[in-house]
Amino acid sequence: MLKESLSGDGSPLYRSAYHLPSQGGKRMRPFLVARSCEIVGGKAESALPAAAAVEALHNFTLVHDDIMDNDLLRRGVPTVHTVWGTPMAILSGDLLFAKAFEILLTSGARSEPLRRSGEALAVATVRLSEGQSLDMSFEERDDVTEAEYLTMISGKTAALFEASAKIGAIIGSGDEESIRRLGEYGWNMGMAFQIFDDYLGLTSKEEVLGKSVGNDIREGKKTLVVIKALQTGLKRQLQPLLGNKNASDADLATLISLMKENGTLDFVRCKAQEYVDSAIDSLSTFPDTSAKRDLKELADYAIWRKK
Amino acid sequence: MLKESLSGDGSPLYRSAYHLPSQGGKRMRPFLVARSCEIVGGKAESALPAAAAVEALHNFTLVHDDIMDNDLLRRGVPTVHTVWGTPMAILSGDLLFAKAFEILLTSGARSEPLRRSGEALAVATVRLSEGQSLDMSFEERDDVTEAEYLTMISGKTAALFEASAKIGAIIGSGDEESIRRLGEYGWNMGMAFQIFDDYLGLTSKEEVLGKSVGNDIREGKKTLVVIKALQTGLKRQLQPLLGNKNASDADLATLISLMKENGTLDFVRCKAQEYVDSAIDSLSTFPDTSAKRDLKELADYAIWRKK
Repeated sequence: MLKESLSGDGSPLYRSAYHLPSQGGKRMRPFLVARSCEIVGGKAESALPAAAAVEALHNFTLVHDDIMDNDLLRRGVPTVHTVWGTPMAILSGDLLFAKAFEILLTSGARSEPLRRSGEALAVATVRLSEGQSLDMSFEERDDVTEAEYLTMISGKTAALFEASAKIGAIIGSGDEESIRRLGEYGWNMGMAFQIFDDYLGLTSKEEVLGKSVGNDIREGKKTLVVIKALQTGLKRQLQPLLGNKNASDADLATLISLMKENGTLDFVRCKAQEYVDSAIDSLSTFPDTSAKRDLKELADYAIWRKK
Repeated sequence: MLKESLSGDGSPLYRSAYHLPSQGGKRMRPFLVARSCEIVGGKAESALPAAAAVEALHNFTLVHDDIMDNDLLRRGVPTVHTVWGTPMAILSGDLLFAKAFEILLTSGARSEPLRRSGEALAVATVRLSEGQSLDMSFEERDDVTEAEYLTMISGKTAALFEASAKIGAIIGSGDEESIRRLGEYGWNMGMAFQIFDDYLGLTSKEEVLGKSVGNDIREGKKTLVVIKALQTGLKRQLQPLLGNKNASDADLATLISLMKENGTLDFVRCKAQEYVDSAIDSLSTFPDTSAKRDLKELADYAIWRKK
């Protein structure tokens, strides 16, 4: 559906907008929309436009984030601004954003679920922007707390997972309690996903990740791993590498094994597990269906994946 | 309404997003929303959220366009990326975009008019992106035709005027014919506005415009003035200045007076007038109310304004 919507006229605008979606990605958010629709008794097909809309919106944020962070690789291919330049990348992000609302609001579902889904998508995007802004402000600070980090990822990542689950439930005509519970599930799953993502960025391999290991440290990102490492006596080893674009792979590898030894990485992984547990708890009142099993698996996948 | 929605938390994100709206601007689009609501019998108050949404969306496009074109001044103040840097400017544009949909879809009007207004806003933004992309592609070309230029501004400018008028009529519960006619009015007015804007960019004064006279030529923009000048024997004089960031004010002044003499500027002004006439024609079936008089005046203002 996203493909048709972005087939356009073969212009650089449409080709650049379809660059990342054509690489696949994990498609967790559209999956979340479809299964959340099913778990409340709706048909997955009816949620497909909303699922495509959420994926378009997610890709819009990736394209713009890659410009802001000047990341060169994503999903194993050069980022949009690397290929088409920053002006076109800004514009193709904007197009993906607009397409998200176009796909959602013209999908032929009833007006009120569509209006409410659009509201959820817009609110999530406001929170995404706030989260990204916080994340950027952290780069200049050395005193970011765990609580501030959690606020940041609540906006930057969890808000769209929350909205995806809610939108699925709204389109599937779920009752208010189901919509609330699924939103809670999505939010917790998003928190777990992001914490584990930061963890993976240090413990996975470049050929698996599709981006460089330790990039977050080189960019001075204040991830939970970094915040914990600063608190647990690794400040002296971490400081020279944090925000240092030229930090060597060897120095990063040494730091990472110190983080393993002193329990920093275990702490972070456990934190992600706690959020997954909360996510799964939020599903407890739903009957045992294949949609529920899929959502449980998705939550586990969020912290057991390799990339 | 836009002010409250952007009051935020005093962070750079919200301050940068409110930077341009706080400078006022012409506010033509929200005016268009309100009067189009009234002309079909609706109350202007009921259209205020939609009017604020359209203005937020317009400001989002300005912030991003200024980055893409690297413009330094807007509304007499430094552009957002000049003050806050490109990453924050990208993000504050995104926030304005998201706020537009949030304001619109939470405004408390009935679901179907809101869904449809959201659709109109999304479709207009897709067309805006296409128009901006065309405009950027024109910069590398010397053979842009008048027809291509008109297609470009139809997306870049007229689409949002069209959507604004339609949205007003939708919120005001206008019938299909009224919505169609007001859309036509808005589109024609937008065409006139942009053509006249390009004209003003060469014939006004910097202190009135709030930006440099002749900027479009220095940036190599293929405006209707430039396209006509190339066709009417001014190629030799225009070519060395087109896309030349260092073109002198004196050389530009000489070129502009040649354009006056050989009728290029008159041609462009007449073209704008034609669109204004069509815009006013589209209003013919509406009864004579103060809203109708305002919309007629707005169309005239589009081509008689000083900035």
